[in-house]
Amino acid sequence: MTAHSKFDPSARILLGPGPSMTHPRVIRALSAPTVGHLDPELLSLYAEEQELLRTVFQTKNEWTFALSGTGTSGMEAALVNLIEPGDEMLVAIHGFFGERLAEIATRVGGQVDRITRPLGEIFTLEEIESALRQKPYKLFAIVHAETSTGAEQLHIKEIADLVHQSGALLLLDTVTSLGNIPLKIDEWDVDAAYSASQKGLGAPSGLAPITIGDRAKSKIENRKSPVASFYLDLKAYANYWMGGHAYHHTASANLHYALTEGLRVIVEEGRENTFARLRSNSETLWRGLENMDLPPFIPLEYRLPPLTTAQVPAGVDPHQVRARLLNEYNIEIAAGFGALKDKVWRIGLMGYSSRKENVTLLLGALRELLK
Amino acid sequence: MTAHSKFDPSARILLGPGPSMTHPRVIRALSAPTVGHLDPELLSLYAEEQELLRTVFQTKNEWTFALSGTGTSGMEAALVNLIEPGDEMLVAIHGFFGERLAEIATRVGGQVDRITRPLGEIFTLEEIESALRQKPYKLFAIVHAETSTGAEQLHIKEIADLVHQSGALLLLDTVTSLGNIPLKIDEWDVDAAYSASQKGLGAPSGLAPITIGDRAKSKIENRKSPVASFYLDLKAYANYWMGGHAYHHTASANLHYALTEGLRVIVEEGRENTFARLRSNSETLWRGLENMDLPPFIPLEYRLPPLTTAQVPAGVDPHQVRARLLNEYNIEIAAGFGALKDKVWRIGLMGYSSRKENVTLLLGALRELLK
Repeated sequence: MTAHSKFDPSARILLGPGPSMTHPRVIRALSAPTVGHLDPELLSLYAEEQELLRTVFQTKNEWTFALSGTGTSGMEAALVNLIEPGDEMLVAIHGFFGERLAEIATRVGGQVDRITRPLGEIFTLEEIESALRQKPYKLFAIVHAETSTGAEQLHIKEIADLVHQSGALLLLDTVTSLGNIPLKIDEWDVDAAYSASQKGLGAPSGLAPITIGDRAKSKIENRKSPVASFYLDLKAYANYWMGGHAYHHTASANLHYALTEGLRVIVEEGRENTFARLRSNSETLWRGLENMDLPPFIPLEYRLPPLTTAQVPAGVDPHQVRARLLNEYNIEIAAGFGALKDKVWRIGLMGYSSRKENVTLLLGALRELLK
Repeated sequence: MTAHSKFDPSARILLGPGPSMTHPRVIRALSAPTVGHLDPELLSLYAEEQELLRTVFQTKNEWTFALSGTGTSGMEAALVNLIEPGDEMLVAIHGFFGERLAEIATRVGGQVDRITRPLGEIFTLEEIESALRQKPYKLFAIVHAETSTGAEQLHIKEIADLVHQSGALLLLDTVTSLGNIPLKIDEWDVDAAYSASQKGLGAPSGLAPITIGDRAKSKIENRKSPVASFYLDLKAYANYWMGGHAYHHTASANLHYALTEGLRVIVEEGRENTFARLRSNSETLWRGLENMDLPPFIPLEYRLPPLTTAQVPAGVDPHQVRARLLNEYNIEIAAGFGALKDKVWRIGLMGYSSRKENVTLLLGALRELLK
């Protein structure tokens, strides 16, 4: 037993795929006194949190709130509510999280077809159009910003048009895009999207923002079978957040203080200013990496500012460098995923982690370690 | 938009069914710097957190950890992992949370039979023995401490013997018992139990401690069908916490700092001392309520110290009194559930909320409001 041990976590500089660094204002909000899950003060906070989430999602969707779980719970919630057992669904996979979408969709009873691009590539509209012609799918899902490769799937608005012409709904994974890059749920006509609190929004993990448009809401409200998950039942969530505020589960007041403060930081900076800051800092990173012969793996056209995959030079052990960054400099970056495991580093500049001083520090540390 | 609004939650005295008040040490731990979900420092913390959870659960179970969701996610996780579609299951219902067990078990594909006691009563061993004879059930579930009524189901060890003689496994809801009243997972031979971070453990909500014994683990490892929930898949959790520390979801480091600190507080006070403090403060409350003609609803024999249902006198509007306690005194207590809605108040004295000064304050406030 170590009952009397104390815990002083190191002050990490979090430049991995998430969590990003918790904003100091968010830390202060997090540690405000706990109130009950039905306290009128918390219910007022929810109303503000919803408005802020609508601002960052760029939507007017009534069903816009934050689930009591991590981003993966948001993915599962979207799928288990939108799929009825036996529903045909198409998942377009251009990285690890697309594969996860297909796995969860299968577990919750969907009949899942996959189309796949090699790691580091994205889909053309023609590929998606042709795949949608195979069957009358009820749901099409794709990842907007693939955290495993650093690729942004472009043309979401055009994809939404193709999906709707085929009669399906569009589910978009926005875990790494929300708050980090432009994302326009209503203008692009996305039916459902989910995200996470710990990347672009600068809060600790533990909450999963989700937004559900009219078509998707109608699909959920007209289900023939009950949602197989009680915990992630979106109708019950909507009723707790908005309708009669009926008890469903004991939401974590402190996490909601934190997420709301993170959202305020973005809205106060200005959503577009946030995106510009992220892009500018990442462009500095990219120039620095190129100068050190560690070029970004993803072409500039669809390279994600919040997540850069940098190619590891021949003869360098990427995992040893990562360990030294952590142990000697307190800097966290991540390894590559799957086939890219030994070939790239994944460097995140999201939310409050995206600051000029962090870019300069990381480049300086890499220079020292690789010299 | 209210982007610039600030949020200063009132310093509530939380004497409802949970959350209890977050311990000041826990608030400090909560606000330590965020580290990554695979940081070696967080993985070390998990090892300590597991040992502390085993101490409060009184178990040696290897699979003892905390899920990234509220207590309801713990309930759903236990059911969705232990039930295969079509499995026969018996739920003994003596309050709201027993009914929730039956509902979730049905949603995840179980064939559920129910036995029920009126609100405020508990089961005899004979009732359970006779119900177990109806069919060869695979799982039997019951709530240890019913937060909706304040009743403790006694004789869990004897119930476990009956359940095992019948060939079933025992799932015990310990949401309101863990850390609040004696609970002996190994000595009583309970196969699986789950709880929540925000009641007896003095942390914010958002984590669900769970413990899985050998028989239940074997049942999960030998399932014919995959677990329908990816997010709550206990094998994946075990692998993230212990085995290869494989990525599964982005656990909230800050919530784990908080829960671990809450557990340390209990182990440092001494588990049995904690139970004695709770009982002593609740006995003071009960005497005070009796003196004011607000007698506890549950007989002393199986009355729960952490949750007291107090009978509302004729002519008193219980909801108006609750609102005045909140608005004038910053004290949260709760209404009754279901048929008890207008008949009782629910008063929680759990975790850090169970302090002499809180009892004196509540009794004083009730005296002023009811005079």
